[in-house]
Amino acid sequence: MARVTLLTDFGTRDGYVGAMKGVLASSDPGLILDDISHDIPPGDIRKAAVVLARVWRNYPAGTVHLVVVDPGVGTQRRGLALEALGQFFVAPDNGVLSHVMASDPGWTCVKLLPSDHLFPPRSQTFHGRDLFAPVAGLLAQGTPLEELGTSFVNPMRLALPETPLRPGSRKGEIMEVDRFGNLATNLPLSDVESAGGVMAGDLHIPFRRTYGDVPSGELVSVLNSDGLVEVAVRDGSAEDRLGMGVGATIQVGTREG
Amino acid sequence: MARVTLLTDFGTRDGYVGAMKGVLASSDPGLILDDISHDIPPGDIRKAAVVLARVWRNYPAGTVHLVVVDPGVGTQRRGLALEALGQFFVAPDNGVLSHVMASDPGWTCVKLLPSDHLFPPRSQTFHGRDLFAPVAGLLAQGTPLEELGTSFVNPMRLALPETPLRPGSRKGEIMEVDRFGNLATNLPLSDVESAGGVMAGDLHIPFRRTYGDVPSGELVSVLNSDGLVEVAVRDGSAEDRLGMGVGATIQVGTREG
Amino acid sequence: MARVTLLTDFGTRDGYVGAMKGVLASSDPGLILDDISHDIPPGDIRKAAVVLARVWRNYPAGTVHLVVVDPGVGTQRRGLALEALGQFFVAPDNGVLSHVMASDPGWTCVKLLPSDHLFPPRSQTFHGRDLFAPVAGLLAQGTPLEELGTSFVNPMRLALPETPLRPGSRKGEIMEVDRFGNLATNLPLSDVESAGGVMAGDLHIPFRRTYGDVPSGELVSVLNSDGLVEVAVRDGSAEDRLGMGVGATIQVGTREG
Repeated sequence: MARVTLLTDFGTRDGYVGAMKGVLASSDPGLILDDISHDIPPGDIRKAAVVLARVWRNYPAGTVHLVVVDPGVGTQRRGLALEALGQFFVAPDNGVLSHVMASDPGWTCVKLLPSDHLFPPRSQTFHGRDLFAPVAGLLAQGTPLEELGTSFVNPMRLALPETPLRPGSRKGEIMEVDRFGNLATNLPLSDVESAGGVMAGDLHIPFRRTYGDVPSGELVSVLNSDGLVEVAVRDGSAEDRLGMGVGATIQVGTREG
Repeated sequence: MARVTLLTDFGTRDGYVGAMKGVLASSDPGLILDDISHDIPPGDIRKAAVVLARVWRNYPAGTVHLVVVDPGVGTQRRGLALEALGQFFVAPDNGVLSHVMASDPGWTCVKLLPSDHLFPPRSQTFHGRDLFAPVAGLLAQGTPLEELGTSFVNPMRLALPETPLRPGSRKGEIMEVDRFGNLATNLPLSDVESAGGVMAGDLHIPFRRTYGDVPSGELVSVLNSDGLVEVAVRDGSAEDRLGMGVGATIQVGTREG
Repeated sequence: MARVTLLTDFGTRDGYVGAMKGVLASSDPGLILDDISHDIPPGDIRKAAVVLARVWRNYPAGTVHLVVVDPGVGTQRRGLALEALGQFFVAPDNGVLSHVMASDPGWTCVKLLPSDHLFPPRSQTFHGRDLFAPVAGLLAQGTPLEELGTSFVNPMRLALPETPLRPGSRKGEIMEVDRFGNLATNLPLSDVESAGGVMAGDLHIPFRRTYGDVPSGELVSVLNSDGLVEVAVRDGSAEDRLGMGVGATIQVGTREG
């Protein structure tokens, strides 16, 4: 049973996602489509890359991930199809697959041929519908990667921050803020554990095994589900409490009086 | 054909829902996944319970409903798998299944074993991905409930308000406000019908069979699709018109001059 | 493999969409459901019609599209089932299928019988769950259109604006603003190409093949993926830049000094 996931910055109110779903369903009426997100902020390649990293490893081999966060549509940027750990990815060549490539050094990739032999003449502004969705449909049907384009060894990669930082790093920063106001950091776990917590400005925030180890409403640092040290408020929002966002400094905490 | 529904307070922008979908798809590549909502306000167990009540009875036997509104993740709260009327539910033990249990006095339930025999070592902060989704996948594949945990007869239940109130009750309240600004109340239908309407403060709002029985823009009370007396504005929002929300008093209306 | 798409103004927070999905799944446990949008502004029939037009032609024959933007629920408005180009549509008779009918002059339509022979007694306020979803389920299972109601040749149609305007038209307007702030117009392509661009007030905006033909941050007019002349800002929002919305005047641009 073939399955394609969709991750875009299209929102859903305009029907662009639906247009892609129609193309996919036309390639195989039994294709199962899973929405991952269409709420990526417009053009935010970095956020899309992080969301994809959080999701894809949970899917089984053979899954096709269609990622259309494409501020460069209508420029000369390439389109890619990539295989990693037996799963497939179709996306613009803008760095959105950086974490995927980092997870599997054995990835293989082709750049999609801009050939109208393969696909009908297409718009200059909606490659999601006119190029990427058809390619995802072909991959879901088992078309080999190499039939979709020419081998490409140099996809664009984001300068990925070191996450987590190496042990001994005392100063880190907030990498992501989620819907619950949890603040993911790049601080090394071992140092935070030894020090017993983190510092946000002058505020010491203790490290605990889980949210439940502090009373409701209190700040706590924990190991989160991505393997990072996170600052949270039990039953609340650390973002609201601290007024801190992505890029703000968080340090390994020294136990103090 | 197995089917799992997903109801969470995760939003979609962070990829947490997608991570759970991947786990489910890995349990069975042909599994069909239906999003119910990911827009439950963070931690709002009561709203999730109401949404679930509105949805699940329409599904066929064998459906698995995965409900992750889990402000207690990382505390000692249990995880549950429950069967009612031939359908299955996987959720934290926080009351979110209260309406389900009220609908089928013959429900059966197990508390999920926190055993790492069954599941890989898991995070302390994302049981949706690491515990509840794998259990939902097992149920969808036909694993008997009793293999997933030990019998549990005392799940947490919300103090459900009497809805609707018993006949003769003159004073009720607004139970829910929906996207259209319709105000669901707990007033007894028979009394509202006899009285010919409801009172919002000094304002008499007539009871009619349907929205179309009053001119566009006018207030009306009707029997809604959940079987409750609802206050609405035809082609408009009663919430905006009356400035009233959940908990506000609505009374059975006496016909007046 | 049967497939039903869902397009509503319900949002997802209240569970109304989930209730319809349950009804559909009950009609056929293997039915695949694709969300198109639930973010149509409440009651905005025109927007729903445009989104449907953008989506449906990409789907394969046999697809059933369930469209519930229904400000007239509870009035005497009819319910429709319609076939066009081998696809099926279930919707209230309020004009939301106007573009579909315009695309296939050979459409056929029935008005749904308000008969409780076919369906269980239903609510007066939620025909999406109680009438339209069951009908969509029947169509997905292959029930012939004519068994669902009586032939109906005069569905309501919106007064569709001429889009694009005929060649020689100098003055058009903004038809739609999308999530990216792109402004779709009804200006004729041939005239815009000859003139080399469009005018927004006193501002000349050049016509180019694609976004990439102007520097980042600059205004450009292009042919969009619906075949309309669109005003955009590369890597930005033309809506924000120009402060213009639906209905604002855009003219064919004369090249000037």
